[in-house]
Amino acid sequence: MNLTVYLAGQIHDNWRSEVKEKAKNLPLHFVGPMENHDRSDNIGEEILGEQPNSIFKDDAASKINNLRTQVLMEKSDVVIALFGDKYKQWNSAADAASAVALNKPLIVVRPKELHHPLKELSEKAQVTVENIDQAIQALSYIFEE
Amino acid sequence: MNLTVYLAGQIHDNWRSEVKEKAKNLPLHFVGPMENHDRSDNIGEEILGEQPNSIFKDDAASKINNLRTQVLMEKSDVVIALFGDKYKQWNSAADAASAVALNKPLIVVRPKELHHPLKELSEKAQVTVENIDQAIQALSYIFEE
Amino acid sequence: MNLTVYLAGQIHDNWRSEVKEKAKNLPLHFVGPMENHDRSDNIGEEILGEQPNSIFKDDAASKINNLRTQVLMEKSDVVIALFGDKYKQWNSAADAASAVALNKPLIVVRPKELHHPLKELSEKAQVTVENIDQAIQALSYIFEE
Amino acid sequence: MNLTVYLAGQIHDNWRSEVKEKAKNLPLHFVGPMENHDRSDNIGEEILGEQPNSIFKDDAASKINNLRTQVLMEKSDVVIALFGDKYKQWNSAADAASAVALNKPLIVVRPKELHHPLKELSEKAQVTVENIDQAIQALSYIFEE
Amino acid sequence: MNLTVYLAGQIHDNWRSEVKEKAKNLPLHFVGPMENHDRSDNIGEEILGEQPNSIFKDDAASKINNLRTQVLMEKSDVVIALFGDKYKQWNSAADAASAVALNKPLIVVRPKELHHPLKELSEKAQVTVENIDQAIQALSYIFEE
Amino acid sequence: MNLTVYLAGQIHDNWRSEVKEKAKNLPLHFVGPMENHDRSDNIGEEILGEQPNSIFKDDAASKINNLRTQVLMEKSDVVIALFGDKYKQWNSAADAASAVALNKPLIVVRPKELHHPLKELSEKAQVTVENIDQAIQALSYIFEE
Amino acid sequence: MNLTVYLAGQIHDNWRSEVKEKAKNLPLHFVGPMENHDRSDNIGEEILGEQPNSIFKDDAASKINNLRTQVLMEKSDVVIALFGDKYKQWNSAADAASAVALNKPLIVVRPKELHHPLKELSEKAQVTVENIDQAIQALSYIFEE
Amino acid sequence: MNLTVYLAGQIHDNWRSEVKEKAKNLPLHFVGPMENHDRSDNIGEEILGEQPNSIFKDDAASKINNLRTQVLMEKSDVVIALFGDKYKQWNSAADAASAVALNKPLIVVRPKELHHPLKELSEKAQVTVENIDQAIQALSYIFEE
Repeated sequence: MNLTVYLAGQIHDNWRSEVKEKAKNLPLHFVGPMENHDRSDNIGEEILGEQPNSIFKDDAASKINNLRTQVLMEKSDVVIALFGDKYKQWNSAADAASAVALNKPLIVVRPKELHHPLKELSEKAQVTVENIDQAIQALSYIFEE
Repeated sequence: MNLTVYLAGQIHDNWRSEVKEKAKNLPLHFVGPMENHDRSDNIGEEILGEQPNSIFKDDAASKINNLRTQVLMEKSDVVIALFGDKYKQWNSAADAASAVALNKPLIVVRPKELHHPLKELSEKAQVTVENIDQAIQALSYIFEE
Repeated sequence: MNLTVYLAGQIHDNWRSEVKEKAKNLPLHFVGPMENHDRSDNIGEEILGEQPNSIFKDDAASKINNLRTQVLMEKSDVVIALFGDKYKQWNSAADAASAVALNKPLIVVRPKELHHPLKELSEKAQVTVENIDQAIQALSYIFEE
Repeated sequence: MNLTVYLAGQIHDNWRSEVKEKAKNLPLHFVGPMENHDRSDNIGEEILGEQPNSIFKDDAASKINNLRTQVLMEKSDVVIALFGDKYKQWNSAADAASAVALNKPLIVVRPKELHHPLKELSEKAQVTVENIDQAIQALSYIFEE
Repeated sequence: MNLTVYLAGQIHDNWRSEVKEKAKNLPLHFVGPMENHDRSDNIGEEILGEQPNSIFKDDAASKINNLRTQVLMEKSDVVIALFGDKYKQWNSAADAASAVALNKPLIVVRPKELHHPLKELSEKAQVTVENIDQAIQALSYIFEE
Repeated sequence: MNLTVYLAGQIHDNWRSEVKEKAKNLPLHFVGPMENHDRSDNIGEEILGEQPNSIFKDDAASKINNLRTQVLMEKSDVVIALFGDKYKQWNSAADAASAVALNKPLIVVRPKELHHPLKELSEKAQVTVENIDQAIQALSYIFEE
Repeated sequence: MNLTVYLAGQIHDNWRSEVKEKAKNLPLHFVGPMENHDRSDNIGEEILGEQPNSIFKDDAASKINNLRTQVLMEKSDVVIALFGDKYKQWNSAADAASAVALNKPLIVVRPKELHHPLKELSEKAQVTVENIDQAIQALSYIFEE
Repeated sequence: MNLTVYLAGQIHDNWRSEVKEKAKNLPLHFVGPMENHDRSDNIGEEILGEQPNSIFKDDAASKINNLRTQVLMEKSDVVIALFGDKYKQWNSAADAASAVALNKPLIVVRPKELHHPLKELSEKAQVTVENIDQAIQALSYIFEE
């Protein structure tokens, strides 16, 4: 049995590579958003052409990014959402809540000090952990006999 | 025909009173989270007793807050989520995304300058506006003949 | 038992008034889109302000129109969609198909000569009739003992 | 990961071949309606025998065409609906709206000048583009790392 | 608390009157198909005009009858389906199975000697009884304190 | 693309073999109920032991038969239900209606003279045909280019 | 806004009366299983007649009890399940898990010392408390402004 | 056709090995909870670190156990739940009821003398048997021709 895992969350460092490396012995297939931040911001204009202003540029980009997210999250069995101390990350919170509403089990990864602002979302998650190792352990446990 | 509207978002100022006042001639019933911030933070310990530390205190509070949210959002026909420039508001983003996943039409209210970090969530919303007057206009339009 | 009926379709003549008048003795409540065509086209700019060009103006208007449709169709027990020989009426076709997908019984009203282009949609409808009197008869039959 | 894409829309030119050719390096499998227009119109009588008149002939054909559509759209991960300036294309609009209601992400392809009559349907789509190249770019983006 | 009960099954005798009379002290509202058999058979031609032959006449009638059934069953909390020893009653079996698939609790009423041909449907029902008094007792039990 | 087809209906002759033979060049996998009639009737007592009387024997058998049907119909993309002029076939009608309620496209096969008693079920089906060849043609059409 | 609360759990003492008394100032309507234990055990034979042995007697009773539970839980907005230290209470656990699967928020009430055997079910609940007062406080919080 | 079977129930003896051995000639893939009881109890602290007391330790463990259950039950076509005469087994009852609510056919295995406390759950199951051999026979019957 193979599982597909959607890696929601910020795209400002290479945490997804760390997840993939640490989980390389598990039968997992990882998907997620475009991690190239500039490309993610520009994809709307790249496809739809120049937009009237930065708000419309953002609208255009988010249409394409949400197309990707909707297709890939639908294919997933589990969602991991990682929160850090930088950026607003409302998109991550939205993806995490969508996962819960779609009955996809959600693992939230966040540093301890972010607990308070994440508390209602953590409570909706199946489990909240503080680092990637713990998330991998939880995924690994699904396969153990 | 009466509609029930869930007012998601921050509880740090009295924006909900403004909504209710401005919509007082529409057949709308408003519900939402506990707006007394201290009570919202303490409700877990108030009901479940003292918790081992602040993380467990938060867990306890969020269980009761999410009970309220789940019951009231289920009763709602439309969800308004207001974002401001203070606080992390991850809970607001999560409630907004839950509304979309539950097929509740979502109106996002946010100042223009917050467009970029909210862009994917705005794109999922039925409509994004910049102030409460616009949100009320949109609700009013549902009833106009 | 009262039923709510959504009247989808063109807004270029007063066919909805005819439906309401002819059904006035049945326990039906009718809802539907904004019938003032100019207002329907302008509602986006009215609420969201001037848009960069006519496509963005249309986008803005359709967000508000779809908010109204989503709320009111969700409240409905039956959907009537009327097609005429003018205009493209793609929006009517889309509303009609949405009704079917939401398990709302659909009554299509269309002149006989439009059968061919509507054939797949007619086949999805619960019943297709040629005039408003027939649609009212079908609704009336639900209540007869 | 392979995706299945349903190509809704008119069957009067060979736009589907263009899509397949341009996407040949992506892991996509394309499905769609019968593209032989005469066969699509006659399939009802071919299977069910001669019908009393052209309306019943159309009814019979649409039963078989809708069987095909229902089976293949259910198997699809994404739907592309292309609109042109000829024909009524109500069936295309209906298929597009069904896709949205089934939570299949929808890409609408239409020439710019058709924006107004398609505006509510475009707003329901995940993204609206003007040509096939843009639709392929959007699909390609789902797979990019 | 009031409950709505759909009375599926044959329309060849007045068993529904017996149900209503015997349940008159319970807070129940009963709905069901057209009980005037001729009208049920002719309703298609009455609304849609003369049809080419008896099969098309039946098709037309069943469209209107199924419109009624779909609307009223959707409004129901419980479904009672009564089977007798006359007629094929495939329509009753279909309505009963639809109720189960829609998560409406189903009470089957049938004489003991019909158990064998109804066995799989009885097994899907919440309860199978032999007469109307037993069905009323089961409904009454829902309200007892 | 392969499709799985559930063959509902009577188990008193070998019509399923005819379907399989005639469809042998299509990418179809067929499933269905136990076709050995005695075994189908006795499977309850075979597994659960002797039952108090024939009604309980039937109950026991139908539990096992419905287990099989539920598992296999869930795996199916299309359902064919064949009706003949013998036996009550209420189980077939129930399986056919379950398929419709589960959004599985339904093909009804029945001799012309059975149209009247099957009329509401036929109307719920995607298509109704008179013989197996026609059903195979309809399935074949799904794959044609 | 009124809420309906299903009171699942043992029927061996009068805890439901305590709930109703303590919540009498809240806009709540309470429903639940038959609390007369003998009647609950005998209702199958009362309606369906004498059964062959005690297992069939139990089967008959549980059909009627589950009819009641299914109807009333479907009408409920919140479910409270109370566990005590006597009896197996598997039925209570099943009702509680059904509530969660139906997206009804669940409040588990149990003495502290029962935490271990209830741990997975508690984790699925929205909140777990130790006594009725706490459950009422949680319900009250939904209505507080 | 292969089926995946979730083996819910107690983890205090090796009944799952018996199931797997006896079903080794059937095209079945078995999944289920962690069977190492100590590991199941300790997995929360193993991943999340030491907890304040035994209740929080249990909470932590059940989060991880429920993650596993949710992922694997979602992948399953059938659920077997085995009850014995030891332990409270509320978790087993909850898993069994979840399966029913998710439309997964449920086979309950229990010794005859446990019928009374399991009666409502047995009634929700597709079939209740007394031993593993019977459960395997029922599964085998799904594949027989």
